[in-house]
Amino acid sequence: MAVNRVGTLYGVGVGPGDPELLTLKALRVIQQVPVVFVPIPRAGAASFAGSIVEPYLDPSRQRLEKLVFAMRDDAPTMEGQWVQNARTIGAWLAEGQDAAFATEGDPMLYSTFGHIRQALGNVLPDAAVVAIPGVSSVHAAAAAALAPLADRDERVAILPAMYEGDELRSTLAAFDTVVLLKLSGAIDRVLDDLEELDLVDRAVVVSRCGWPEERIVRDVRSLRGQRIDYFSTMIVRGKGL
Amino acid sequence: MAVNRVGTLYGVGVGPGDPELLTLKALRVIQQVPVVFVPIPRAGAASFAGSIVEPYLDPSRQRLEKLVFAMRDDAPTMEGQWVQNARTIGAWLAEGQDAAFATEGDPMLYSTFGHIRQALGNVLPDAAVVAIPGVSSVHAAAAAALAPLADRDERVAILPAMYEGDELRSTLAAFDTVVLLKLSGAIDRVLDDLEELDLVDRAVVVSRCGWPEERIVRDVRSLRGQRIDYFSTMIVRGKGL
Repeated sequence: MAVNRVGTLYGVGVGPGDPELLTLKALRVIQQVPVVFVPIPRAGAASFAGSIVEPYLDPSRQRLEKLVFAMRDDAPTMEGQWVQNARTIGAWLAEGQDAAFATEGDPMLYSTFGHIRQALGNVLPDAAVVAIPGVSSVHAAAAAALAPLADRDERVAILPAMYEGDELRSTLAAFDTVVLLKLSGAIDRVLDDLEELDLVDRAVVVSRCGWPEERIVRDVRSLRGQRIDYFSTMIVRGKGL
Repeated sequence: MAVNRVGTLYGVGVGPGDPELLTLKALRVIQQVPVVFVPIPRAGAASFAGSIVEPYLDPSRQRLEKLVFAMRDDAPTMEGQWVQNARTIGAWLAEGQDAAFATEGDPMLYSTFGHIRQALGNVLPDAAVVAIPGVSSVHAAAAAALAPLADRDERVAILPAMYEGDELRSTLAAFDTVVLLKLSGAIDRVLDDLEELDLVDRAVVVSRCGWPEERIVRDVRSLRGQRIDYFSTMIVRGKGL
């Protein structure tokens, strides 16, 4: 009787948008597995991670499978979705096939991979899980704007701006560099805090970093009242390098 | 009369140690330029970044040049060294040749590239500078230990442990994830704080991530009193994912 080896799930960070920021390891893994899963925000939508990996796949022996991860503040629905997606992946792994879950940026930083991994632990506890780190938007934005993140004794904070309240001000005061992600809807509040702390000239916003439509805004005051692209990163340097 | 175009300096992140974590872009750039500079801590020493890039270079048309960056708390000596190294690089650029400066991890996070860039701005203001982001040890350690950095509304702090004082405790209390770099000499102090905040079971240390001698320590209490490798990263999760 054949031993039914359970496959390995690779959580693969594909970088922030520029397809050249894929690592050699990510490329090897996605070209090796028979199936690459990618998240989409709703049925029929395009996949960001999918658009990066698809050109590297061989359709004669590999499949690209989309999994819906609707983003909303409805925990039971979200959890049901994660379990359902983990079952879809688990079905491949249970056949002894390896699989990749490709995710924008890095799989451990604000990625759906964390939920998939947790749900898979219940669905198929025997499955091995391996994470392949990627270049996150934090590093890509810093490079694009030539904005140093830290030197020597400096401290960095990474915050999701849309969830920040009063603690944003104390963090801006206590850290040398603050990186703000998820700026949508929060820009005016963030600008208020920056102006109060006299840091507004020490901030830069990078939108769609590494995409053809990349935009670097150094006069961040000009963003007040504007709709900010979800894929935007603000870097605030409390002091110079 | 020929126009003497000034070359471009590429600050290239080569990742945290695993040569497969080089990006496609980093690989393209280091194979394209006639000279790749790498930092070494003292004359005659081996270069970490150099060991990653050297196998990809073509010695018949490319040179690997080592630049000494002694690490010590002596600002005038350090600055003199940065200016001297910037002049060495600037001499190539002034000839119209492009050059790469390869740096472990990411060029904007605790990298000598920041100092080279600043010194070059004085030595050769016309030189264009481009940064190629890399996978930092923060992301690599998180992937190796399968330790999530952040989800949804969570906040991450990156701190150089050896320079932290009392503020470490308040940061551990205010952030969902704290990543501690530069642990050498600081481990006992960090363990005291973790024990006081009942977080010692929520910490993991990854040393020499992606190197053959990689080591993941989940019982961090066992590190008390020990000499910790400079290339070690601690990830503390205040709450679970």
